[in-house]
Amino acid sequence: MTQDKTKNWDQYGEYLALDTLLDIQKPWSADKATGAFAHDEMLFIIFHQTYELWFKQILFELDDVQMRLGRPVVDDCDMQPIVKHLHRVVEILRLLVRQLDILETMTPQDFTDFRDHLKTASGFQSLQFRLIETRLGLRREDRLLFNHCQYDAGYCPASQTAINTAEHETTLFDQIDKWLARTPFVDRDDYKFWDSYRAAVHTMLDGREAMARHAVDGDILDRELAAIARNRTKFDSIFNKDADTSSSPSSSWRLSWRALQAALFITVYKTEPALQGPASLLGHIMDIDAAMSQWRYRHALMVQRMVGMNVGTGGSAGYGYLMQTLEKHRIFTDLFALSTYLIPSHARPPLPQTISNQMGYRYGTTG
Amino acid sequence: MTQDKTKNWDQYGEYLALDTLLDIQKPWSADKATGAFAHDEMLFIIFHQTYELWFKQILFELDDVQMRLGRPVVDDCDMQPIVKHLHRVVEILRLLVRQLDILETMTPQDFTDFRDHLKTASGFQSLQFRLIETRLGLRREDRLLFNHCQYDAGYCPASQTAINTAEHETTLFDQIDKWLARTPFVDRDDYKFWDSYRAAVHTMLDGREAMARHAVDGDILDRELAAIARNRTKFDSIFNKDADTSSSPSSSWRLSWRALQAALFITVYKTEPALQGPASLLGHIMDIDAAMSQWRYRHALMVQRMVGMNVGTGGSAGYGYLMQTLEKHRIFTDLFALSTYLIPSHARPPLPQTISNQMGYRYGTTG
Amino acid sequence: MTQDKTKNWDQYGEYLALDTLLDIQKPWSADKATGAFAHDEMLFIIFHQTYELWFKQILFELDDVQMRLGRPVVDDCDMQPIVKHLHRVVEILRLLVRQLDILETMTPQDFTDFRDHLKTASGFQSLQFRLIETRLGLRREDRLLFNHCQYDAGYCPASQTAINTAEHETTLFDQIDKWLARTPFVDRDDYKFWDSYRAAVHTMLDGREAMARHAVDGDILDRELAAIARNRTKFDSIFNKDADTSSSPSSSWRLSWRALQAALFITVYKTEPALQGPASLLGHIMDIDAAMSQWRYRHALMVQRMVGMNVGTGGSAGYGYLMQTLEKHRIFTDLFALSTYLIPSHARPPLPQTISNQMGYRYGTTG
Amino acid sequence: MTQDKTKNWDQYGEYLALDTLLDIQKPWSADKATGAFAHDEMLFIIFHQTYELWFKQILFELDDVQMRLGRPVVDDCDMQPIVKHLHRVVEILRLLVRQLDILETMTPQDFTDFRDHLKTASGFQSLQFRLIETRLGLRREDRLLFNHCQYDAGYCPASQTAINTAEHETTLFDQIDKWLARTPFVDRDDYKFWDSYRAAVHTMLDGREAMARHAVDGDILDRELAAIARNRTKFDSIFNKDADTSSSPSSSWRLSWRALQAALFITVYKTEPALQGPASLLGHIMDIDAAMSQWRYRHALMVQRMVGMNVGTGGSAGYGYLMQTLEKHRIFTDLFALSTYLIPSHARPPLPQTISNQMGYRYGTTG
Repeated sequence: MTQDKTKNWDQYGEYLALDTLLDIQKPWSADKATGAFAHDEMLFIIFHQTYELWFKQILFELDDVQMRLGRPVVDDCDMQPIVKHLHRVVEILRLLVRQLDILETMTPQDFTDFRDHLKTASGFQSLQFRLIETRLGLRREDRLLFNHCQYDAGYCPASQTAINTAEHETTLFDQIDKWLARTPFVDRDDYKFWDSYRAAVHTMLDGREAMARHAVDGDILDRELAAIARNRTKFDSIFNKDADTSSSPSSSWRLSWRALQAALFITVYKTEPALQGPASLLGHIMDIDAAMSQWRYRHALMVQRMVGMNVGTGGSAGYGYLMQTLEKHRIFTDLFALSTYLIPSHARPPLPQTISNQMGYRYGTTG
Repeated sequence: MTQDKTKNWDQYGEYLALDTLLDIQKPWSADKATGAFAHDEMLFIIFHQTYELWFKQILFELDDVQMRLGRPVVDDCDMQPIVKHLHRVVEILRLLVRQLDILETMTPQDFTDFRDHLKTASGFQSLQFRLIETRLGLRREDRLLFNHCQYDAGYCPASQTAINTAEHETTLFDQIDKWLARTPFVDRDDYKFWDSYRAAVHTMLDGREAMARHAVDGDILDRELAAIARNRTKFDSIFNKDADTSSSPSSSWRLSWRALQAALFITVYKTEPALQGPASLLGHIMDIDAAMSQWRYRHALMVQRMVGMNVGTGGSAGYGYLMQTLEKHRIFTDLFALSTYLIPSHARPPLPQTISNQMGYRYGTTG
Repeated sequence: MTQDKTKNWDQYGEYLALDTLLDIQKPWSADKATGAFAHDEMLFIIFHQTYELWFKQILFELDDVQMRLGRPVVDDCDMQPIVKHLHRVVEILRLLVRQLDILETMTPQDFTDFRDHLKTASGFQSLQFRLIETRLGLRREDRLLFNHCQYDAGYCPASQTAINTAEHETTLFDQIDKWLARTPFVDRDDYKFWDSYRAAVHTMLDGREAMARHAVDGDILDRELAAIARNRTKFDSIFNKDADTSSSPSSSWRLSWRALQAALFITVYKTEPALQGPASLLGHIMDIDAAMSQWRYRHALMVQRMVGMNVGTGGSAGYGYLMQTLEKHRIFTDLFALSTYLIPSHARPPLPQTISNQMGYRYGTTG
Repeated sequence: MTQDKTKNWDQYGEYLALDTLLDIQKPWSADKATGAFAHDEMLFIIFHQTYELWFKQILFELDDVQMRLGRPVVDDCDMQPIVKHLHRVVEILRLLVRQLDILETMTPQDFTDFRDHLKTASGFQSLQFRLIETRLGLRREDRLLFNHCQYDAGYCPASQTAINTAEHETTLFDQIDKWLARTPFVDRDDYKFWDSYRAAVHTMLDGREAMARHAVDGDILDRELAAIARNRTKFDSIFNKDADTSSSPSSSWRLSWRALQAALFITVYKTEPALQGPASLLGHIMDIDAAMSQWRYRHALMVQRMVGMNVGTGGSAGYGYLMQTLEKHRIFTDLFALSTYLIPSHARPPLPQTISNQMGYRYGTTG
């Protein structure tokens, strides 16, 4: 209902609950008598409050993405919102990295002036950030211990329950693993992607070997043949079913063998209409993993600058600890590792027409 | 007081008032029966809430900067925090521009799905943003009318009072004008910056004229002489006391004549120790003006993308209106215009030793 | 051929032609005798050289995109590279905006120290930038005159020829217009998108009218009915074939009527598999238009800061001129304007099953 | 000399040597017969060429900064250009990080299509980047071996000579160390900063101990006292002359003891007029160190995405190697570590008036 357009502008404030929102910045360094407090504590509070608002938004997007990916069959029309919402998470994470530029207008001395007042409060303790990590797929057993304790030992029972609940629900990692494993084209009718790709790899390496034998000899040939042999071994390791985590405990893969195949298939044939969305989805997952990692590193550097070799506020997460999480807390490294097994497009095996047809749109004339 | 380091992590949540902060996102598109609402409205709410938190931070920094600049004499030790806090405002404004990348992950169709529910609520109505503009120095008479009404006609009495109060307090523009006008070195003992600079300009232009007469003739000489004559007129316009806004109503300068002189002096001799801070301060003021302008334009483009030729939510600020404010609502254009009157360093008049000495540190051996 | 891995690292330099690349920065402010020059001129040169390299990359991406879009039928497998390469152009343009942060570490006084030496050289004269504008679709008649002359009057014959050639080739705007106009689903079998959408709009407005009559009366009802009537008029203007530019000279649309329909269709039904790519393509075109515009404005502000009210180097493009191009030189405003005609998803007419089927993948079970 | 303003626009091209600049992109994947090449190789080339141009600019700024800092006495008027040029380096490094967004529009498969053609050419081999590292202060003995060889083993003799020359010149690290060590106020007349600061630290810790004994007892008191004792030990370690690298081989400090004192003094009393520039300088050095580190990490993640677990082009720098350099190749960690020894402002010892006076400007009335 259109209303008088110059009235009631304060609906904006009501809509955003500004009376409340702008009244919950309470510096702990404030002197009880005078109310004076360390100037930069306000920045510290507002900085972290905006972080928490964005964390809420990330969890909200994950709700949607996981609801769609969690269905037995992912509807083709869901690919657009899934990709859109993952892209939004990427943009938010990039903003969170960029936002540290503002916090770094605070000097270490400025921070020292209110640091003691923070007692045990620390950004390291953000429950929502823990939930994001868990929902994405970071497992309890993958997490670094903190002071010989589990990472959630310091939370109140309600927070611990929230974490436990998240840990027992299906994570985005697991959903993507299952969704990949269901990809219909990898093994369909007479077509076996793995066989086709393996043959192409061998043809490519045979060609290199023949060219080497033709062009060089002696030590140079020996080195070249050794390099080709290492390449064969490298590729064989992925063609082997034992690459599966379940059957090979020593494997570094976390994705299932079937999912790995599908991810490679999607990567290699990404221009096929039915694979454009999935390829985009995988790209955004890698963007999220990379953005989280960059945030961790940027945060670690900021902590080092602010407190040097001291531990963080809350007695917790000093620079050394944070740097250990840098690699340990990554989730989707398998997708990055997959690039190890790519071959040039000219060596790529062409798709059988019947498979390619199935991945096209119905309105077209072929098929 | 050090506490058990793995306990009480929830103090972080208490410190940031997370229970409240994360409970005040109430989409208006929510269906009363099902609670379902347009997915992207959550982003819209959280986006604007983070904006309002940053606006509060900007106002908080302005409080500090204006308190220091408002004193009869600005303490030399205040220059560092003033510059630091202005720089922080710049970084925040740049983040607010950058943050629009996130909002643009929402498509126009997504926005259409909850736009009607917003009724008259509009970001255009942010009271804090109006206060920032006013505090910086945007005058009521400089503002574009909106629907033939004053820009604050739609606010409730309390908000209007806040605006009126801000309008009647000394703005940052006025403080900078007064602070510049007090700069001691511009006219000190026998030294008159204006006389010195005018003489240097004339010497420079005389040199150009002589070179032209020596090198060319005919039409080319005429054109060159005409160009030099235009240059003389240009410079004379600023050397003339009538450049003052008070005595020359037609002037486009808002800064006082004395402040203009000082701003040029600081710009030209910026490496002198006592001018490094002031030069940095003026640079940050220009950064703020430019960042506000970029935000206005980016915002206008976003509104155009989301609602096309429609007016904005709240029946208010469509693309056309916003584009009109782009130039009209700028505040510190005088500082940009000042570059019109710069001359190359080699033509710059050297400072008398006595003046230069006064701008050095006491510990040095000279003076 | 694998080589000794610690040898021949200088191939990197050979590959990038570094000997040449790093030897073509020749400051014009250099003193013939001493070689000394204004320090910041090096930044000015390198800044513009990186710009020109990125312009070359943009033109290179346009080559590819236009080659694919210029075919009589755009292959479905081409959608992925088209979108990828347009996205790359967006990222480059955003970098070019961001890169101005570096140039602004130069103060106006620093610039004044070598500005006179630049004579008529000006970034305003970049031939590649003119070609990018023309290739995207900026027409000669849309361009602002410069000093009462055509925009390319100052170029040498070879450059003018390059511009003329680009002007006579099919632009990206024209290709997108044609590609949109060919969209098969807008008018297929018994389905007419326009009829379907018009009916939905009328139903929606009828609903609003009925609700208004039920809920309010008197002046409020009159105002509400007037608003609904304006809405009807607004929508009728686009449903009318006379919206076509060819038949209605007064129209502000540059896209053909048929292309407008298709663009709206794609926007509205963007989750359909066959429309996900096209919707993404249109989004990137808008991103390009917005990024170009932001660059123009940021550039204009930088020019104003560096030279105030003077004209630019090369006697050319001062702040006032640049500001006039801001709106005048935009190309794809039609896509922004289209949002004027969106309706909420709940009012959107469902697609007939036969149409929806055709936009799905062949492997699915339906259809 | 003003010229006809619509003529000779091609001077812009001449100024920037565009004929040459835009003609040195020669993809190695180009087919000899057809000229066809992998589309994304052009991006790869232009991306690295812009990097090398910016590296040249960084070296050019270092020339200036090192020339000024290398003088026996740094002129007070040099502080402004030093800070300005270091800030420019920071902005360039941040752009180089940001610029990776463009390279990541290339998918790993796209890269695979021309990777083999690059043979041993690798960004890892940039001579200019090695020179930047060395000039900043990265020592040969601090560098990771590469394939059991020195990092410059693969370069041609001319490049090796350039590296050796840089290694034997005074680095920025050494210049800053010496400049800090010369700071006059740290030990002047009767004032000894170290004694004054140590006394303040002990007073602060005594206060904490008294408060603890008053407020708690038992285990809690024991823990608190142990924490205070650890704090005393921590501070004593820096007050001890043996913190000097020369006298204590086990120390982790690279800065001299005297320089550490001065850096802490500047950090603590940063608002004093004579310390504002130095404090800003130290801040920018930390920004450079942090930006280099962020670039290294972002680059490592990009390499991992593009080539997985393979080694890099040129058989060189795979992800694992790059990650090892992340901490090992940092240069100015001492400045970050210094924050370990900050105390709140209220506990900070006031400067004697005579010392404070010397750091003020001569024009003032005090002193």
